[in-house]
Amino acid sequence: MILLGIDPGSRRTGYGVIDASGRVPRYIASGFIRITAEELAQRLAQVYAGIGELIGEYRPAEVAIERVFVAKNADSALKLGQARGSAIVCAANHGLPVFEYAATLVKQTVTGHGGADKATMQHMVASTLKLDGLPQSDAADALGIALTHCFSQRGLVTRGNASSARSRKSRSSSWRSYTPQ
Amino acid sequence: MILLGIDPGSRRTGYGVIDASGRVPRYIASGFIRITAEELAQRLAQVYAGIGELIGEYRPAEVAIERVFVAKNADSALKLGQARGSAIVCAANHGLPVFEYAATLVKQTVTGHGGADKATMQHMVASTLKLDGLPQSDAADALGIALTHCFSQRGLVTRGNASSARSRKSRSSSWRSYTPQ
Repeated sequence: MILLGIDPGSRRTGYGVIDASGRVPRYIASGFIRITAEELAQRLAQVYAGIGELIGEYRPAEVAIERVFVAKNADSALKLGQARGSAIVCAANHGLPVFEYAATLVKQTVTGHGGADKATMQHMVASTLKLDGLPQSDAADALGIALTHCFSQRGLVTRGNASSARSRKSRSSSWRSYTPQ
Repeated sequence: MILLGIDPGSRRTGYGVIDASGRVPRYIASGFIRITAEELAQRLAQVYAGIGELIGEYRPAEVAIERVFVAKNADSALKLGQARGSAIVCAANHGLPVFEYAATLVKQTVTGHGGADKATMQHMVASTLKLDGLPQSDAADALGIALTHCFSQRGLVTRGNASSARSRKSRSSSWRSYTPQ
């Protein structure tokens, strides 16, 4: 089973793809979607197109994404929410279930310490997946999210902090409510 | 020219469709997308599908959306950002230009007062578009956004608070950056 981990951000959206079929999770790909457009709508379209290309190329069965608790301030929370919304709706539109994991749980699961720094995440992800080099930071976080989902599904994650957000493309015919004329 | 105004929210996303071809803008439709799903991915998919249906039905040339400055707190900003991201990326994926207008500018333009309450917005929108009844509040806001865009394009809005976020579906082939193996 292929898993896609996503670490959304308003400048870069990290991704990590692992194969969770065997006894030991296997690295497939990682990197980040670089958001280069200047205008908001185009930026969100880049996130959506990027996630769509990854889904098309790697055919993941499930998607895991970092859950956000508190952003620094309302403005950065709004920006992050927009990028996150674009990534999640892309997965949902492809009929994929989306699972959310808190950043602290991801760090705890991958490094054994919920307050681990970025370098420790990079090293532990590289070690777990037997990579030759260190993955870039956003890619490492996304691989860590995918690993956390993999271990969580196997009952190897102690704190039950995951929430399933199973998504099927549902089209309600009754969502419109008001037409005065 | 058909304009689609959107007032995004995490529970309801208001919409308003007007025809800006003639001398006086004409009402076409309004209402809201009711977001009923419990899980986040499905909720965002409902927003996306709803906006997509509106675009398919009314074929707007341009989309206008309320710009958010400060939400109450980071958590509500994140939720609003996610709904907003889903709505904007849907318009962008349909190749439509997206314009943003501050809520105060919309109120100022429609009612003459930047701090107008919801009831005043409903009455002034109904009056401007010669509606028989009062539109529901989210629908009134969305119609107000569409009207503001219409007047702004005609040079009738005094404060130049609009920002164009022209969106074309751009697929960069260079957005992936790192593959360690």
